[in-house]
Amino acid sequence: MVENFSEWFHNILEEANITDSRYPIKGMAIWMPYGFQIRKHTMEIIKKLLDKDHEEVLFPMLIPETELAKEGIHVKGFEDEVYWVTKGGQSELNEQLALRPTSETAIYPMYALWIRSHIDLPLKYYQIVNTFRYETKHTRPLIRVREITTFKEAHTAHATKKESDEQIKDFIEIYKEFFDELGLPYLISKRPEWDKFPGADYTMAFDVIMPDGKTLQIGTIHNLGQTFAKTFDITFEDKDGEHKFVYQTCAGLSDRVIASIIGIHGDEKGLRLPPKVSPNQVTIIPILFKKGKEEVLAKCMEIKKQLEAKGLRVNIDDRDIRPGKKFFDWELKGTPLKLELGPRDLENNITIAMRRDETEKIEITLDDNLDDNVCDLLNKTTNNLSKIGLKFQEEHYKFASSLSEIPKLIEDGNVVAFNWCGDTECGKAIEDETGYNILGIKEEISEGKCIASNEDAKYLALIAKTY
Amino acid sequence: MVENFSEWFHNILEEANITDSRYPIKGMAIWMPYGFQIRKHTMEIIKKLLDKDHEEVLFPMLIPETELAKEGIHVKGFEDEVYWVTKGGQSELNEQLALRPTSETAIYPMYALWIRSHIDLPLKYYQIVNTFRYETKHTRPLIRVREITTFKEAHTAHATKKESDEQIKDFIEIYKEFFDELGLPYLISKRPEWDKFPGADYTMAFDVIMPDGKTLQIGTIHNLGQTFAKTFDITFEDKDGEHKFVYQTCAGLSDRVIASIIGIHGDEKGLRLPPKVSPNQVTIIPILFKKGKEEVLAKCMEIKKQLEAKGLRVNIDDRDIRPGKKFFDWELKGTPLKLELGPRDLENNITIAMRRDETEKIEITLDDNLDDNVCDLLNKTTNNLSKIGLKFQEEHYKFASSLSEIPKLIEDGNVVAFNWCGDTECGKAIEDETGYNILGIKEEISEGKCIASNEDAKYLALIAKTY
Repeated sequence: MVENFSEWFHNILEEANITDSRYPIKGMAIWMPYGFQIRKHTMEIIKKLLDKDHEEVLFPMLIPETELAKEGIHVKGFEDEVYWVTKGGQSELNEQLALRPTSETAIYPMYALWIRSHIDLPLKYYQIVNTFRYETKHTRPLIRVREITTFKEAHTAHATKKESDEQIKDFIEIYKEFFDELGLPYLISKRPEWDKFPGADYTMAFDVIMPDGKTLQIGTIHNLGQTFAKTFDITFEDKDGEHKFVYQTCAGLSDRVIASIIGIHGDEKGLRLPPKVSPNQVTIIPILFKKGKEEVLAKCMEIKKQLEAKGLRVNIDDRDIRPGKKFFDWELKGTPLKLELGPRDLENNITIAMRRDETEKIEITLDDNLDDNVCDLLNKTTNNLSKIGLKFQEEHYKFASSLSEIPKLIEDGNVVAFNWCGDTECGKAIEDETGYNILGIKEEISEGKCIASNEDAKYLALIAKTY
Repeated sequence: MVENFSEWFHNILEEANITDSRYPIKGMAIWMPYGFQIRKHTMEIIKKLLDKDHEEVLFPMLIPETELAKEGIHVKGFEDEVYWVTKGGQSELNEQLALRPTSETAIYPMYALWIRSHIDLPLKYYQIVNTFRYETKHTRPLIRVREITTFKEAHTAHATKKESDEQIKDFIEIYKEFFDELGLPYLISKRPEWDKFPGADYTMAFDVIMPDGKTLQIGTIHNLGQTFAKTFDITFEDKDGEHKFVYQTCAGLSDRVIASIIGIHGDEKGLRLPPKVSPNQVTIIPILFKKGKEEVLAKCMEIKKQLEAKGLRVNIDDRDIRPGKKFFDWELKGTPLKLELGPRDLENNITIAMRRDETEKIEITLDDNLDDNVCDLLNKTTNNLSKIGLKFQEEHYKFASSLSEIPKLIEDGNVVAFNWCGDTECGKAIEDETGYNILGIKEEISEGKCIASNEDAKYLALIAKTY
């Protein structure tokens, strides 16, 4: 893991062609070509997981003020950070329109039209869109932005509370699979009452520990109960002929997933991309001399074709610069596997493979098994990155048995677990006293005393310095 | 082609689950699951074509007023239809922000930072984004909207005028290939001076003739010359050491492509989707009786697997409704090929295939060649839809040798070609007199007299009733 994460992160985004933050609006950046490809491959994974039993849709970006304002608790949670469109052309609009901060109030009035009967349930839609928050805090690309360019939001409606609770579990499984594929470790917790999504019954969240020890919330799942159903009058005729309100859930992911791929896997040399999301999974670097140049390049092309036939993304770096610079560049850009090929290698019918996550160089014979051998190395990289990530998380997860230990443990870059009675006032007191945020409840426990109130502890809770 | 296109189009969007226009903002609609899939597969085709030598990026959606206002001609063309964000949270913004109507003024200030030397050229980026126009005219889903949800815009920069002209030709070839893959006929013309893109040297456009005889602009390509380069100071150091302004082009496509797929190919029964963009390319309809139900369904699953292994998108409609209703639904939704399978077919080891574009029923043996036979039928559908589309265009393309013929020809649903001297005043007089719009110049000619001025004709021009 990198030292001085904040500076490293700032630099790598520009150096690796991920985003450019010089756009003339604070908190809004450009996805550059290399970053865009990482984003694309990452989104392909979640889409594939959701497409199994959700359907993709696309809602308008603007929300009329009357709709946004309908759900009182919800609007209260967002009103300070909504951007408003008030003018069209030269004229004032009759009603101001919100840039969506999230889409509940855009989607649910339509659910009220679409859902009529129990046969319309469950309804499971998702969309991937841009959303907007007028952040007054310090912004940081991909982490705290004013335009969230990649907001995946799923919205489901169910006939019973039980089914909605099952859906929450399904989402947790989907997110686990998603983050596992990205090699990201995570902590799952149930957010405390005072930090749940505005309008939700309860909120489950995935957090990662970034290299600086601060946690980053990278996925949230909310059981909305019947709050929005009652506000937007979303009812269905049940089998028994009665009209009932639906139970709803929603689940979100954002650009922050990319931030954590970059942050968790990166090292001092640059990115270390999990093969599944790397724009190039294999980068071939020809070592070119005047003599034998054509033959070496021809062989590189042949290798590329062989690997592409296996479904791999491969590029050849044939730039007219010294090989050392190429190695440097691709270490920075995090290509998982480099294959080096010079005239002597060609004579010996081998290529030198270098994994981004290991320093060892491996000779591979250029034969029919090359593609399988390459896939094998890529799988090893995938597993190793996961392992490194998990190890970091384990090393930065501590248990505190007294309140006074907490600040030091957190300042040392850890997330801290502690026994808690679960009482809201007690929780807020813990936050006040330590100066940090309770992430939430990790699990129920049946023994021990609360770290603060000394009552019987009900939960193992997590506290951390958060982004 | 359908009669009463306007009503048919309105109905089919809802019936086929393409879009829902009941969203509470005029001119902004929801992409429903089936429509979303058509949109997705359509965009995959253009992305694949562009990815060969363009790179995908993503710019912020908001543009500061100072940037938008910098290019005088450009802003004049858009100022009446820009939505403005003036408030963030409870406070007025220091500077109002435009919802992008198109992204030249978002992108080009960054090009000024990125382009330094001739080795940075050509620069070819594209993005697919939502854009906004405060339309005061009557809106119509996918055709005239206030949120263009699917705006593909490519922006290139070049060292010389010659290269920028070559780029225009490249874009024309890319668009041709794109529309050909969709089976869409098109007319290519150079827009008249008074109808070119605000800020462009010249504009090339692709139009289709919709079933009601009105033309719909579905693609535009602009040579921007050095207009924006001078405004945004986009310069490069050339090989000769001199600092020069770049030459730029841009090219756009929108939701209208989907509108024309629906409109051009549809018939009274519903959609007829080109296989490449159809959510399901093959729909299997089991004919189920109590006896032999399991066997029939098992065989359907087997066929599905066989076809999916060939890369086809296949669904089985096993709903518990009568087969006639299923046929009706899938004709409406335009699935290119239906395979019917009942117990007797299973005994005979056959399936009955029905192309959406033909009424004939074809027996296909259930053997190892089934997938090839199905692909063959899908290819025939693709070709036939193109042929039907082209025939319609040819039948609705007429030549007028006098001005007085034009209105009647256009009212009868035609696009009209005529000889023109090319003079702007003369062109505007033709528009005034006929009441229709000159689409542009189709080709240069060397004989004949202008239909209006009686001067020597320079061009074959097109005039039409436009959307």
